[in-house]
Amino acid sequence: MGQAAQTPSGTRDLLADEVRRRRAAFNTLSQIFENFGFDPLETPAFENLDVITGKYGEEASKLIFKILKRGVHEASGQADLALRYDHTVPLARVIGTHGAKLPTPYKRYAIGPVWRADRPQEGRFREFVQCDIDTVGSHSPLADAEIVLALAKGLDGLGVHEFTFMVNSRKALYALLDVYGIDPAGGPGVLGTLDKLDKIGAEAVAKELTVDRGLTPEVAEALVGDVAADTPDRVRERLDATEEGKAGLAEVDRLIELTTSAGLASEHIVYAPRMVRGLDYYTGVIYEVEAAGYPGSIAAGGRYDQLVASLGGPDRPACGGSIGVERILAIQGSQLTEQRGLDVALTVLGGEEDLMRLAAELRDEGLRVGTYLGSSTKLAKQLKWANEQNARITVLYGPDEQAAGEVTLRDMQSGDQTRVPLPRAAAHLRNTLEGP
Amino acid sequence: MGQAAQTPSGTRDLLADEVRRRRAAFNTLSQIFENFGFDPLETPAFENLDVITGKYGEEASKLIFKILKRGVHEASGQADLALRYDHTVPLARVIGTHGAKLPTPYKRYAIGPVWRADRPQEGRFREFVQCDIDTVGSHSPLADAEIVLALAKGLDGLGVHEFTFMVNSRKALYALLDVYGIDPAGGPGVLGTLDKLDKIGAEAVAKELTVDRGLTPEVAEALVGDVAADTPDRVRERLDATEEGKAGLAEVDRLIELTTSAGLASEHIVYAPRMVRGLDYYTGVIYEVEAAGYPGSIAAGGRYDQLVASLGGPDRPACGGSIGVERILAIQGSQLTEQRGLDVALTVLGGEEDLMRLAAELRDEGLRVGTYLGSSTKLAKQLKWANEQNARITVLYGPDEQAAGEVTLRDMQSGDQTRVPLPRAAAHLRNTLEGP
Repeated sequence: MGQAAQTPSGTRDLLADEVRRRRAAFNTLSQIFENFGFDPLETPAFENLDVITGKYGEEASKLIFKILKRGVHEASGQADLALRYDHTVPLARVIGTHGAKLPTPYKRYAIGPVWRADRPQEGRFREFVQCDIDTVGSHSPLADAEIVLALAKGLDGLGVHEFTFMVNSRKALYALLDVYGIDPAGGPGVLGTLDKLDKIGAEAVAKELTVDRGLTPEVAEALVGDVAADTPDRVRERLDATEEGKAGLAEVDRLIELTTSAGLASEHIVYAPRMVRGLDYYTGVIYEVEAAGYPGSIAAGGRYDQLVASLGGPDRPACGGSIGVERILAIQGSQLTEQRGLDVALTVLGGEEDLMRLAAELRDEGLRVGTYLGSSTKLAKQLKWANEQNARITVLYGPDEQAAGEVTLRDMQSGDQTRVPLPRAAAHLRNTLEGP
Repeated sequence: MGQAAQTPSGTRDLLADEVRRRRAAFNTLSQIFENFGFDPLETPAFENLDVITGKYGEEASKLIFKILKRGVHEASGQADLALRYDHTVPLARVIGTHGAKLPTPYKRYAIGPVWRADRPQEGRFREFVQCDIDTVGSHSPLADAEIVLALAKGLDGLGVHEFTFMVNSRKALYALLDVYGIDPAGGPGVLGTLDKLDKIGAEAVAKELTVDRGLTPEVAEALVGDVAADTPDRVRERLDATEEGKAGLAEVDRLIELTTSAGLASEHIVYAPRMVRGLDYYTGVIYEVEAAGYPGSIAAGGRYDQLVASLGGPDRPACGGSIGVERILAIQGSQLTEQRGLDVALTVLGGEEDLMRLAAELRDEGLRVGTYLGSSTKLAKQLKWANEQNARITVLYGPDEQAAGEVTLRDMQSGDQTRVPLPRAAAHLRNTLEGP
């Protein structure tokens, strides 16, 4: 045998404890999204290549895994399919494919893997789970509020309790640029620079706005001063002076009103004029979530009324958000060493039929039961196995016990042993394991 | 907009009810396998190409989805990865990759998609879920019995209650061929022909054994007569005449003894000499499961002590089985029209903050709650939406109710309406929905 084969670069095997932990997290999120009336959607792992092509820009498109044609066409070296890169393009495709079969509005959640050929690095994988919720077909601010509330509940469910939704509005941002006489055509560039505030600081941003974005030093400084201020009061004042500005502020305020009405604590959601969000497909409210102990943002979303159409779907207003579950799980994982052991381990020194019957009774009670499957007939070796299995109780059924029609139950923590009649063993174990 | 994009050939979108139904089935199976002490394992969707290549034979290898190299290598037209074709090759790879990190024996289950470029046809998909359990590293007959019991519980959990495990042993089959002086080298071919008994009948099989497998007409007829007999008595008699035959019978009988000891009804597991199973990697007991109402076999498995090594893993004894979940779900699906609706639908005629608060209270109770997100201010239209959502109760909160501080609760089945004070609405709804 040569060197053992490995997983492909940037991927990983998920062993027992990791699968259980992830599954619990995804189940929690699913349950919450279901309660908000979102429907699950699962699309194929791959899409026809033309559905994916041209949707992600030049840089990202290099990261798409493409699937070679098959059979006689394989030799062409051409691809006809591509692994899904996110859940948004498949959603837009689904809206087109299923049309009237879907509820209106269509509220769906998707929790599943996507694939990106990013350079592998610590904590970043080429196969990772994205968790999205979206509402397609509604202009209502209630739709935005529901997304925020569902994300907040989701974070809470994942054990992230101290978080803040930093809210802004594309409308408000463009109104602010308008106040300063900045051409909307240059808007995305200016916002892209403002987005770097946390990274490079106010001074560097002001400089970049002057050098790269063509703003005068005075305008650049005033604009940065507005959005980087400790309180939003200055921005509010400027926005209140125009109709567009008022409308933008109203969007932000309405989202905060509706979500706090529903019980979201007011310290969990604030207006953050400096939050611009990098992607330019947003059209209304936008938000990023910061949380103590988690660098960067751990959830984000907003309204993107043109996105579905621009991705090849029909023209529908939409809003949605996502939770960075992989990052949250990675950070929490380093603090956890939980492991699921056996409730009962059965050693085997003869009497297999009796043991099979006992195992069946215990499993019917919902207990996790393992039987020694090795070849050793030495009790010490079998107890070592039970120990490795993190068994809570081990059943001994040697010649003595068999003759007496009894079993010995060994508490693996204390080492205490109790002998009980075989027919009463299942009931005894159930009572012991359920605790007092 | 042109024609709507579709899913790739042979794949499907899973909409809400279908996802829920599948998820419930997979959860049931997971829970059962956990109780038997099996650990979940999730491997990447793709493996390095050399891990997959040469493992499935010539015909099958044409069905593998290969992934094109990326970046500057894309133009080469070559693949370096392949989507997983089953869970067995990844398991063999995992045994090699993780070695001592895994428990001994390693008992794992895998429930997840695999991809095969089969010609798409009714009920057969290119992306479908396989459900496998395997124990690697044990020679014990208890390991085989556990697999059978877990599969039986799994079938039961999926609602398939009338099934029969048809058990045989590779050892017994080869011993039977030996009785007739058939060269073991020709064994796989002869067994391959015998495997067609149910399809083409005894006469055609006897003929093929003569023409294609080189048996004399007398031997062919006697052999077919043995395995196709109504009872296994004739085969038992012949096998009892040789040591190898006795050993093969003992394997079968031990599996039946151990599983019936654990409560599997004896009509659910029988010795079936005609059951040979097509694949030649089995080395010990083998079984296929037949069930009333399900054509073909809906579960199968056996012992394959050389398989892990032959797939590139280390040399470990192994046994395992799988349940045909897709086929079971497909057949059951045609009988089901279950749908999960909303517990409570909230119409919106103003008073949004109050409604958001009420929705939050109801969701905290674990109820599934939807809010009207459309643009109509007409109650009739909103009730139509609530109806489409299969809502059990709809909340009306018009100007009248708002002035009185009350809500109207409409039972969507009966049409009955009740008016209750807003602060008592959540408690009232919970009580109503929980039933008497």
